[in-house]
Amino acid sequence: MIKNSIYTSILNHLHKVITLSESEQLEFTSILEEIKISKKNFIIEPGDLVDSEYYVVSGCLEAYYLDETGDKHIIQFAVEDWWISDFEAFFNKVPAKLYLETIENSTLLAINRDALEILYTRIPQFERFFRIKTTNAFVSLRTRILSTLQKSGKERYLEFCETYPKIEQRVPNYHIANYLGLKPESLSRIRKEVI
Amino acid sequence: MIKNSIYTSILNHLHKVITLSESEQLEFTSILEEIKISKKNFIIEPGDLVDSEYYVVSGCLEAYYLDETGDKHIIQFAVEDWWISDFEAFFNKVPAKLYLETIENSTLLAINRDALEILYTRIPQFERFFRIKTTNAFVSLRTRILSTLQKSGKERYLEFCETYPKIEQRVPNYHIANYLGLKPESLSRIRKEVI
Repeated sequence: MIKNSIYTSILNHLHKVITLSESEQLEFTSILEEIKISKKNFIIEPGDLVDSEYYVVSGCLEAYYLDETGDKHIIQFAVEDWWISDFEAFFNKVPAKLYLETIENSTLLAINRDALEILYTRIPQFERFFRIKTTNAFVSLRTRILSTLQKSGKERYLEFCETYPKIEQRVPNYHIANYLGLKPESLSRIRKEVI
Repeated sequence: MIKNSIYTSILNHLHKVITLSESEQLEFTSILEEIKISKKNFIIEPGDLVDSEYYVVSGCLEAYYLDETGDKHIIQFAVEDWWISDFEAFFNKVPAKLYLETIENSTLLAINRDALEILYTRIPQFERFFRIKTTNAFVSLRTRILSTLQKSGKERYLEFCETYPKIEQRVPNYHIANYLGLKPESLSRIRKEVI
């Protein structure tokens, strides 16, 4: 395997699901674009055309929607080993509705939609990889919707800590509260209870 | 193609995305189980282990969650050419949280999880088919979440009619209101406005 490079983590990530030859690894990494971006910067803003999805090598990001009244609704966080984008814009080729913003200085690998389509035809194992990844994302989103109907704030916070152990320490309190649909003061109270 | 059978619609559905030989079609249809079920019956109830997902040949179904207070939350409708299940239970092998109930007399084709896994290894095109289907489901769910933040009840109703033209006429008013997060009387008012 290609070692000690910017690609080490994404190749490890792939090899949990599929097995690629050395030449397939090289073909895959050749279509990735490395992006280094400091914190509090935007990768996507509403109205943008989005031709890439992003794998996080290091750092932390959030995707959110700003409603008409300026209220922020966090749709997704991402840290190391996660994929993030405005997926509706990326897959449906419609203008972005979300902001994608860095919370920390971040290093990302961008994969372009057209290059990915070619990759699917050349190395069909990527069909399998992204089928499984997308299934996980779909099921997680359904689970999250059910949790808001079914679970208390405390249960949802504990579930969040379990699902996103790397995020809980790195994201400001009020961002997590927003994601969980709680008031920041409620989340502070819950955090004191569970420590 | 295999014609004029219970499998005609699912094979047409597949052939919009992938191309299968006659023997591959036979291999696929051999793992399907036909289910005929009259209206107001349950296919899944909370606590069930769910080893199948269901393609709708004819009929209409809904998947919903009943909360502690007995309030119903409709997660998904399905009519002809849709897939439905408790997908969290199906993919994560955890007990079901949802009810899956028929609204009309229905004919379904069940596909078993283990049989599907074997199918992926034997006919990798199914990786592609379900990658694309799951991506569409994931993006639709994200779009629906954003719509509740972003759009008025009227806009959401019009979007629903556009997305689910076959459902709007067949599902009781209060079910659609529930799905859209509207009061039944608000939906009645909206419907009068847009006719």
